[in-house]
Amino acid sequence: MRYRRGASAERELIKMLEKAGFAVVRSAGSKKVDIIAGNGRVYLCIEVKSTHGEKLYFSQEDYEKLTAFAERFGGKAVIAVKFINNGWRFFYPENLEKGGKNYKVSLQTRNYLTFDEVVGRQRFLEGVIKGEG
Amino acid sequence: MRYRRGASAERELIKMLEKAGFAVVRSAGSKKVDIIAGNGRVYLCIEVKSTHGEKLYFSQEDYEKLTAFAERFGGKAVIAVKFINNGWRFFYPENLEKGGKNYKVSLQTRNYLTFDEVVGRQRFLEGVIKGEG
Repeated sequence: MRYRRGASAERELIKMLEKAGFAVVRSAGSKKVDIIAGNGRVYLCIEVKSTHGEKLYFSQEDYEKLTAFAERFGGKAVIAVKFINNGWRFFYPENLEKGGKNYKVSLQTRNYLTFDEVVGRQRFLEGVIKGEG
Repeated sequence: MRYRRGASAERELIKMLEKAGFAVVRSAGSKKVDIIAGNGRVYLCIEVKSTHGEKLYFSQEDYEKLTAFAERFGGKAVIAVKFINNGWRFFYPENLEKGGKNYKVSLQTRNYLTFDEVVGRQRFLEGVIKGEG
């Protein structure tokens, strides 16, 4: 059940990314990241989580694996959380709250990103507007 | 048997790439590419093949999937072939010979790349040497 829910959130996010123009690969094995996406301009290394609740925890080990992988790869590390009753929110690891040994993500976590911000759409549009001004 | 051999070549190449400083993901599912690798400078979208013989064929469909994916992703499309009796050779799709509907890769195919060339090591070293000169 838990596994299925995660896989379903992954598939949903992959479709969103593809629709936004990204080439996307789902990682085999769960050791490093769940999804790698690129559009020739932005490279994303994404860990996907899903919850019916309002918060979830991210172990220090997972945190370090994700950030180390993204740094080496040359991509942005992103934690994508599907709050099933509130929609998707995206977090850069450095914006997570640390609670004890783990990192916490919740609906109260500030500095989350929207999907458009993660895929660089908002920034791109700003650039277009500035370019026209 | 055929599947196992391919998986074993994939694992071998992943280790080579990681040793060369890349962050590597093996793709789940076989629809697009087998391996994505990045080192912050070079991004590789790799299809892995393995053969006991001296040649193998690559369907037009696979060719187009690989090149379209790499272009969208923002990476170099690479066909990595383990000639079991002759070692690894790497090919850019545009250097493959076309035979009928399929693309052919063989030990006679010119313009293959070595592993060092694929990972950008040779070019990098040349740069260093020129920089010193």
